[in-house]
Amino acid sequence: MAPPFIVDIHTHVYPPSYMNMLRSRKTVPYIHDPPSNATPRLIILASDDDPSIPLDQRGRPVDSSYSDINAKLSFMRQHGINSSVISLANPWLDFLEPEEAQVWAERINNDLEATCARVNQAADPTGTSALHDKETLFAFGALPLSAPSPDVVVNEIKRLKILPHLRGVIMGTSGLGKGLDDARLDPIWAALQETGSMLFLHPHYGLPDEAFGGSDATNRYGHVLPLALGFPLETTIAVTRMLLSGVFDRFPQLQILLAHSGGTLPFLAGRIESCILHERKFVANGGDVPGPQRSVWDILKTNIYLDAVVYSTAGLNAAVTASGGTDRLLFGTDHPFFPPLESKDEKWASVTTNYKAIHAAFDTDNDAVTAVLGGNAARILNLK
Amino acid sequence: MAPPFIVDIHTHVYPPSYMNMLRSRKTVPYIHDPPSNATPRLIILASDDDPSIPLDQRGRPVDSSYSDINAKLSFMRQHGINSSVISLANPWLDFLEPEEAQVWAERINNDLEATCARVNQAADPTGTSALHDKETLFAFGALPLSAPSPDVVVNEIKRLKILPHLRGVIMGTSGLGKGLDDARLDPIWAALQETGSMLFLHPHYGLPDEAFGGSDATNRYGHVLPLALGFPLETTIAVTRMLLSGVFDRFPQLQILLAHSGGTLPFLAGRIESCILHERKFVANGGDVPGPQRSVWDILKTNIYLDAVVYSTAGLNAAVTASGGTDRLLFGTDHPFFPPLESKDEKWASVTTNYKAIHAAFDTDNDAVTAVLGGNAARILNLK
Repeated sequence: MAPPFIVDIHTHVYPPSYMNMLRSRKTVPYIHDPPSNATPRLIILASDDDPSIPLDQRGRPVDSSYSDINAKLSFMRQHGINSSVISLANPWLDFLEPEEAQVWAERINNDLEATCARVNQAADPTGTSALHDKETLFAFGALPLSAPSPDVVVNEIKRLKILPHLRGVIMGTSGLGKGLDDARLDPIWAALQETGSMLFLHPHYGLPDEAFGGSDATNRYGHVLPLALGFPLETTIAVTRMLLSGVFDRFPQLQILLAHSGGTLPFLAGRIESCILHERKFVANGGDVPGPQRSVWDILKTNIYLDAVVYSTAGLNAAVTASGGTDRLLFGTDHPFFPPLESKDEKWASVTTNYKAIHAAFDTDNDAVTAVLGGNAARILNLK
Repeated sequence: MAPPFIVDIHTHVYPPSYMNMLRSRKTVPYIHDPPSNATPRLIILASDDDPSIPLDQRGRPVDSSYSDINAKLSFMRQHGINSSVISLANPWLDFLEPEEAQVWAERINNDLEATCARVNQAADPTGTSALHDKETLFAFGALPLSAPSPDVVVNEIKRLKILPHLRGVIMGTSGLGKGLDDARLDPIWAALQETGSMLFLHPHYGLPDEAFGGSDATNRYGHVLPLALGFPLETTIAVTRMLLSGVFDRFPQLQILLAHSGGTLPFLAGRIESCILHERKFVANGGDVPGPQRSVWDILKTNIYLDAVVYSTAGLNAAVTASGGTDRLLFGTDHPFFPPLESKDEKWASVTTNYKAIHAAFDTDNDAVTAVLGGNAARILNLK
């Protein structure tokens, strides 16, 4: 039996132009180059920019794996990944001044397209070899969300459709600054729906420090609380606000890929649905707020895809049950985040944990394993 | 085949003395009696005490089901529940002045004991009938956490062991005011461990409004965001802080029942474990913070029990996989919260949803259904 075709749909890059932009900044997000030869530091989370920590130790070390596409290809080879759908890492272009947004979105997206084209051309110079002989790349584009008008975003969504290797867009949870239940986003949802573009929804902002007991408590355990709990909850809140405000009622063909297996959505979907059915404020229950018209289960089976970046069979079992099957679950790695702390040469535990969980969750069902590892991604994102 | 013995381990009461105390208050938590004959309002969440909402509409209606034990017994009968382990509802005694805490804890716990004794005596006057002929009650006690010294709490934990119907304690996530990773809680963990008392950990404080986009966004959808997402995350954060601070390393026999199937712990356990293994701050990875010594999976299978109040098979599948089997999962209802909005006579959807999910999750495994519905609770809490 041929090995399965493996696609990584959750894998990030900071193109060199973006890295240089971060180097020129002194506020989050920024890159700090220590005066010595020590590894540069990447400070992208507000909680990392703690004045009580020396600048040379803030954030996390950032090496070439963040921007060098050869490091990505080498990582793919090491872990048996045939194709990756790369995306700009958080915080994307959210922080840009309004007048800079459009030019940076076009620059980043053109960079992504050029990189994919170059790599795929090298992998298959004659355009005839099977897709999985050498590693290939596709991309999710970045959006100019801080632009002065949503029209700029809409235009970029339309422009991405003519770039051959772009397969949708990645987006954070702040939208136009007020979250994803903001009615001003409707033209953007409409453009995504009309163009059939996949929206990869990804966290960055986490939860306020107070949720963890204040900044002392938040920082006491390094990144564990913000990354392990803050990120997934941010995603869950964002998509629940979309649901509650009727986005999926108004745009019933919207296609969303949720990072980290939906944050916690598969586990909490039942509680969300129960709370909606018991909420007196909604019209269906005699209140005066419209409330969602479709159930969370319908949306999970129709509009939502989940990555398999959840590091456990427990999480995968919930994801598959909530999705109604294995055809909406897609393998990912979160590269270049969570590298091994010691040797860079070993296989990444953050990746092997997810591989093992997928095999353990679907062990007797080879079709399910093959689908989750790459078949679903190839079909849904038309990777060929 | 005899019907299974059904135990509800997540079911709350506000004894009449507690209701009167809430009536005497004007700040959260409080009960407001409208001047007309309208139903009194219970305002227990800070987010409910919104000055822009008329007092007569704030919070939720509170009827006799909150304090009348006959309403509880009638609810049990209607839903086929044989025995309930009742507990004071949130926010328990957290808000009391230090000097009031001890007397109120003793009063509430003595009230609970007297109620259980009276009901069980009526159910079985001769002390010979089988347990499930009539409804019986047991209780989790309340703790005087705002007392001037943890010794007061320790003494109450020890005193509860001599009350025949008490089966452990219920506790919120604020501990002594600074969360559950507060080292000042160690004498309390020690007392719980030494007495073999179950700790029922339950949310109340939710997340800061900012997590949901500010108070406007939080309130836009009634209680859905704070209850559906804030509550489960609060529980998850609390138990993760216990884990990260080494509580389960120092007190390896601690027994904790987590509300709402662990909040989101079963789903996020893999991500929590992965983040711990990649956290440079922890000694195991070369840092200077101890970090937890035991894995989250070990703790889930040794120290933690989960209620089955998760309203979905997806959630139950994650809970059982994370627990390593069905013997740590316990049926509950969350009564008197989430009543039907229309007729009070119908069966509660919030209960039937959980019944259906349990049957659907374990349909071919009668032993598992019987265990989750009551067998586990009877064994673990020694209900007889």
